[in-house]
Amino acid sequence: MILSRMTWREVEDLDRACVVLIPTGALEQHGPHLPLFTDSLIAGAVAEAVEHYLPAEVLLTPTLWLGASAHHLAFAGTLSASFEAFIRSLQSVIESLEPHGFEKFFVVNGHGGNTEPNGLALREIKTRFPNLTVGHVGYFDYSRAVAAEVMEGPIREIRHACEAETSLALHLFPDLVRRDLLRDDGLTANPPIAGLVATFDEVTEEGSFGYATLASAEKGKAIFDAAVDGLTRDVAALARGFQFEGLPPRD
Amino acid sequence: MILSRMTWREVEDLDRACVVLIPTGALEQHGPHLPLFTDSLIAGAVAEAVEHYLPAEVLLTPTLWLGASAHHLAFAGTLSASFEAFIRSLQSVIESLEPHGFEKFFVVNGHGGNTEPNGLALREIKTRFPNLTVGHVGYFDYSRAVAAEVMEGPIREIRHACEAETSLALHLFPDLVRRDLLRDDGLTANPPIAGLVATFDEVTEEGSFGYATLASAEKGKAIFDAAVDGLTRDVAALARGFQFEGLPPRD
Amino acid sequence: MILSRMTWREVEDLDRACVVLIPTGALEQHGPHLPLFTDSLIAGAVAEAVEHYLPAEVLLTPTLWLGASAHHLAFAGTLSASFEAFIRSLQSVIESLEPHGFEKFFVVNGHGGNTEPNGLALREIKTRFPNLTVGHVGYFDYSRAVAAEVMEGPIREIRHACEAETSLALHLFPDLVRRDLLRDDGLTANPPIAGLVATFDEVTEEGSFGYATLASAEKGKAIFDAAVDGLTRDVAALARGFQFEGLPPRD
Amino acid sequence: MILSRMTWREVEDLDRACVVLIPTGALEQHGPHLPLFTDSLIAGAVAEAVEHYLPAEVLLTPTLWLGASAHHLAFAGTLSASFEAFIRSLQSVIESLEPHGFEKFFVVNGHGGNTEPNGLALREIKTRFPNLTVGHVGYFDYSRAVAAEVMEGPIREIRHACEAETSLALHLFPDLVRRDLLRDDGLTANPPIAGLVATFDEVTEEGSFGYATLASAEKGKAIFDAAVDGLTRDVAALARGFQFEGLPPRD
Amino acid sequence: MILSRMTWREVEDLDRACVVLIPTGALEQHGPHLPLFTDSLIAGAVAEAVEHYLPAEVLLTPTLWLGASAHHLAFAGTLSASFEAFIRSLQSVIESLEPHGFEKFFVVNGHGGNTEPNGLALREIKTRFPNLTVGHVGYFDYSRAVAAEVMEGPIREIRHACEAETSLALHLFPDLVRRDLLRDDGLTANPPIAGLVATFDEVTEEGSFGYATLASAEKGKAIFDAAVDGLTRDVAALARGFQFEGLPPRD
Amino acid sequence: MILSRMTWREVEDLDRACVVLIPTGALEQHGPHLPLFTDSLIAGAVAEAVEHYLPAEVLLTPTLWLGASAHHLAFAGTLSASFEAFIRSLQSVIESLEPHGFEKFFVVNGHGGNTEPNGLALREIKTRFPNLTVGHVGYFDYSRAVAAEVMEGPIREIRHACEAETSLALHLFPDLVRRDLLRDDGLTANPPIAGLVATFDEVTEEGSFGYATLASAEKGKAIFDAAVDGLTRDVAALARGFQFEGLPPRD
Repeated sequence: MILSRMTWREVEDLDRACVVLIPTGALEQHGPHLPLFTDSLIAGAVAEAVEHYLPAEVLLTPTLWLGASAHHLAFAGTLSASFEAFIRSLQSVIESLEPHGFEKFFVVNGHGGNTEPNGLALREIKTRFPNLTVGHVGYFDYSRAVAAEVMEGPIREIRHACEAETSLALHLFPDLVRRDLLRDDGLTANPPIAGLVATFDEVTEEGSFGYATLASAEKGKAIFDAAVDGLTRDVAALARGFQFEGLPPRD
Repeated sequence: MILSRMTWREVEDLDRACVVLIPTGALEQHGPHLPLFTDSLIAGAVAEAVEHYLPAEVLLTPTLWLGASAHHLAFAGTLSASFEAFIRSLQSVIESLEPHGFEKFFVVNGHGGNTEPNGLALREIKTRFPNLTVGHVGYFDYSRAVAAEVMEGPIREIRHACEAETSLALHLFPDLVRRDLLRDDGLTANPPIAGLVATFDEVTEEGSFGYATLASAEKGKAIFDAAVDGLTRDVAALARGFQFEGLPPRD
Repeated sequence: MILSRMTWREVEDLDRACVVLIPTGALEQHGPHLPLFTDSLIAGAVAEAVEHYLPAEVLLTPTLWLGASAHHLAFAGTLSASFEAFIRSLQSVIESLEPHGFEKFFVVNGHGGNTEPNGLALREIKTRFPNLTVGHVGYFDYSRAVAAEVMEGPIREIRHACEAETSLALHLFPDLVRRDLLRDDGLTANPPIAGLVATFDEVTEEGSFGYATLASAEKGKAIFDAAVDGLTRDVAALARGFQFEGLPPRD
Repeated sequence: MILSRMTWREVEDLDRACVVLIPTGALEQHGPHLPLFTDSLIAGAVAEAVEHYLPAEVLLTPTLWLGASAHHLAFAGTLSASFEAFIRSLQSVIESLEPHGFEKFFVVNGHGGNTEPNGLALREIKTRFPNLTVGHVGYFDYSRAVAAEVMEGPIREIRHACEAETSLALHLFPDLVRRDLLRDDGLTANPPIAGLVATFDEVTEEGSFGYATLASAEKGKAIFDAAVDGLTRDVAALARGFQFEGLPPRD
Repeated sequence: MILSRMTWREVEDLDRACVVLIPTGALEQHGPHLPLFTDSLIAGAVAEAVEHYLPAEVLLTPTLWLGASAHHLAFAGTLSASFEAFIRSLQSVIESLEPHGFEKFFVVNGHGGNTEPNGLALREIKTRFPNLTVGHVGYFDYSRAVAAEVMEGPIREIRHACEAETSLALHLFPDLVRRDLLRDDGLTANPPIAGLVATFDEVTEEGSFGYATLASAEKGKAIFDAAVDGLTRDVAALARGFQFEGLPPRD
Repeated sequence: MILSRMTWREVEDLDRACVVLIPTGALEQHGPHLPLFTDSLIAGAVAEAVEHYLPAEVLLTPTLWLGASAHHLAFAGTLSASFEAFIRSLQSVIESLEPHGFEKFFVVNGHGGNTEPNGLALREIKTRFPNLTVGHVGYFDYSRAVAAEVMEGPIREIRHACEAETSLALHLFPDLVRRDLLRDDGLTANPPIAGLVATFDEVTEEGSFGYATLASAEKGKAIFDAAVDGLTRDVAALARGFQFEGLPPRD
């Protein structure tokens, strides 16, 4: 079910076992070759596919497209929510539906910079509403293994406007990819240092990180399908119910 | 120009005389007959039309769809931003672009409940960035005269899921209108009292206010065109420049 | 009843059907001819007159004189609350009395810049305390028709230190009017643009907007009486009770 | 000079060596015998007297009457600002005048509960504007010695609606004192414990603390005069200038 | 009992009549001769001594060492919490234990700059949790009389890195005192002005205020013992219970 | 160098190439067998060891021991900072030193729940102070590989009061381990769901997660040494300098 198209009475009549699925994206620079809306488009496409497979179990909200992208603000066109604006927006969605009996909220995220504020938003919600079931995941978390398999460049992880993300774009919205401007980019600390909090103007030349020149629509499809499969499985489990069970004994 | 489809380099190359156009909408109950996204769809449609007529003068952002709708929260499905979340989100858009030299920001609003927080957001921005040119207007402000003319019911103003708004829906997204559920609704204080701050469960039976049964696509087209005309005129004036001039002498 | 002069036991003994009446004003520049306290003096005078006519129905608080006047800060002497300070102050008044059973709160405002934050303050209060009856109105809202009638200049609306406001000052506190410094002032955008959020140093030369040279105490009395009449009527209706009733049928 | 009566041009023309004097009060229960506005009336009267003696050195603002009185909220009629509202309001006054070159701000306080938030407000201001000269004092700080001398009851300190404060009321606004309701009140911990943060419903029976039955207008005059003398001296020193000088040598 | 060393089950089993004792300190400049941690070390030592004497009555938390020290920030090494961070941290401690039935919270403070924010933090807590017993005191409040007696310099009060505080350091952590750098310091306004809010770079030459050259471990022991005695007495009274009793009659 | 033991002059004289090392911990339940301060003790021990090896390169602050532990609050004794309190406290440390020219700040964290707020705190700092070098890492990030190697239970990751963490406790503070109460614990969702935000009362029986019965001091030493080695290496690189260099070409 697609919330934006429904009336309030139709929402009123829903089974509260359904999962409110909230995509979070961004509008931020993605190098010279990908559109600013890349993360929002991917997260939205994954969420829509899951809603397509599980229409009765999913209540899909519009994408919270204004992400936490301050580390990209040196590049023109990036729009970044303050953490406060981002967190309060996400929480507002849940706070609006909770009084009507909705109990399961799941965030599917398309932008790495949202992962931490998504965590804070939901942890605070969980503290205030302990009976809710809440969670968040990046689509890229589901695609990690497949991406490592299909990628060919020296980096086999999903980074930023990289081989994987550009492949997704070629699969999902090829008309928005500037193919003539694909480029490999990225800078790393030497010697390497764990946990640096850097901005993208420090770690790239032109905004992307990875080997975009190796992208293909086929790779994109494989990565996308893995994300949809993973999210479908988790949302189905949330909708149908799960138990907490003990760890296996030590031997 | 449509920001979401652009790359950061394309934004970097823009003429800073352009007007950043920011639609604000809502996802809130609109009676039994209109979809929750009504305000966002209308504001977005008006803004897109203006961008279509003035592509070089307008830099159109995605719609800030999570509106200030707490007065509708008694109806299931409504999502309301806290004022803080709404205001900080809108301000974040401007704060992101201002360092890159953009100087003109204009908000076109589709939801009456956003008018006050839009005002606060921009007044605070103007205090911090006095050199910016900022403004906000409801599409309904441009359509007031035409609406009064084409409407037939006892109320000739644009209210909520009413004759006018339902007409707009029939013009812009007829497939989302539940024509079989159109109904007239609305409650008013007796004796009348100015300035009451009421919630929509107090002033309606089923969520709408006005004479939806009188709606037609033709009326909707007239109201829509007036909004597009008015906004096009103002955005063009902003893009091309204006002066402050003295009042006429008293006689 | 005037809250500031009462003891807590006298408040404790009040009938909770009474209306807590809260004037909001400002301390801000009013051109070369009117004192900084103009808005607070007018709002206070209107509220006191209503309390005089309805002593048993009204519980009058002192005037919240520190208004939201950031758009006047370029002129020395203006004191402006941040929106946060203004909103939290007004809400504090209501939050203090609500636990003691007071249920009806009405704000009478003397400063246009307070209208939006008054709205936000009360909407948030209404969300948290849905059983309260709250409202806000500008005294100028009650005087609109009369003002349009008695004013003689090219602008027949109440603006700022204008024909109407200066007339009110001549009626209410003539000793504080610098009659030798009356002047007409005001700048408007050409071409006109709806919804601009401008500061008063942009839209005036010396701080006032309108035709102050046309002011008279007689006009002021007419405008004042209309405000007192309107507010008295609404406060009486609030105190004595009202119902929400359906709209008339469409034909 | 009294700010509220001035025009912006008159403020613009002031000598910046003057001291902006800001009274802070409260609207809170003062037992069965004193009006809710007691603290605001006293602080305002002290400040007005000082302005009377030093008209050229003082720029007097209206009284910030909405104090930090949460510990009195169990008694009907008390209005308490949240700390945030109180602190931001006081800071707003300074932030408004600072850009116009005013450099000296002094708060005279009439309510013990404001002392801590006044301290926080000014310390934060001082951190942000290190070149400002700021300070705050209770009128009671100036009257301590005289009060100890003229008071006759077992407690020789200025507490709440007590012998001293009731005497001030009898001196300054005798018509508002309910003489037939004077009573002694107050509860203390046994065994005594330092630093308890208690509410007034815990430490009084009817809201006052001290021996109000011993009050007299004469005592009130003595206490008032001491406050005015002390504040006049300090404000004069601020206006005329002072130096920081070293401590005396240890021997 | 020392909270940090316990397990959650041991806390679960505690008698709720115990007093949660929370030391607040600072890490701020203390002149050329005392370490930055002076206030935290003293407050911690006092609290530990009291826990030693009353192990069953006290639940001692770790020291909140990040104090409100903005007035010392001109000196390198000072770390100052914003007021918000300080207040919310202290409140977080209480808010965490209150749901588990702990009812008595007492703060022992080692830094004068924390006194006001401690007050605000606890007053706000008391407003939200009226059934709690809360209080705060500076160790120096207990030592005032003894300090006045044993000090020899022209100032007989505990100030900053002064005769008293340096004596405490010589008693408690002599290895951290730079004895070769002891110096007398301090600047005062001439003429004197009450209530100035100054920073320590305005009122000292090298950061200390008082006659450190007169310090001795013996004086420190006397001051320390007085603090421990006073706090032990108050904590015991809190743990064992107290009543609020009426004031003595006026004659 | 250990900040708390220094004087302000000694800090003033430091080489600004040094790294300010800030440990973050927690005071939260760690099952029936480990003390509440476990995370703070481990993070502090790692940081102290690194300071021992690199005394000239490290400026070690005290441990921010009040962590973000709301998900453990169902267990008595846990103290949790609100996210706001935690983030503002950490930021306060940096904001205090930055004006004195310190440029490198590194957080070593002992509590998984702090990872996200550490990230937000530093990202916001980096946005405001782009020239700073900042980073954060969990000690457990350095120990991952070694832990996986030495652990023997079914889970080879560092979780909570588990085989690894209990081993660290046995190595670092064996007297605080309740060896008679060691137990294996932990609950997981069936079917598994990614990204659930659960509280520890949902995912454990007694507060720990993992196979504490397999812990040993030897394993703890191996895990500890790996953390110290990793952090020493990174801090040395930060102190001595690093460059951002391009990625290797794609082939």
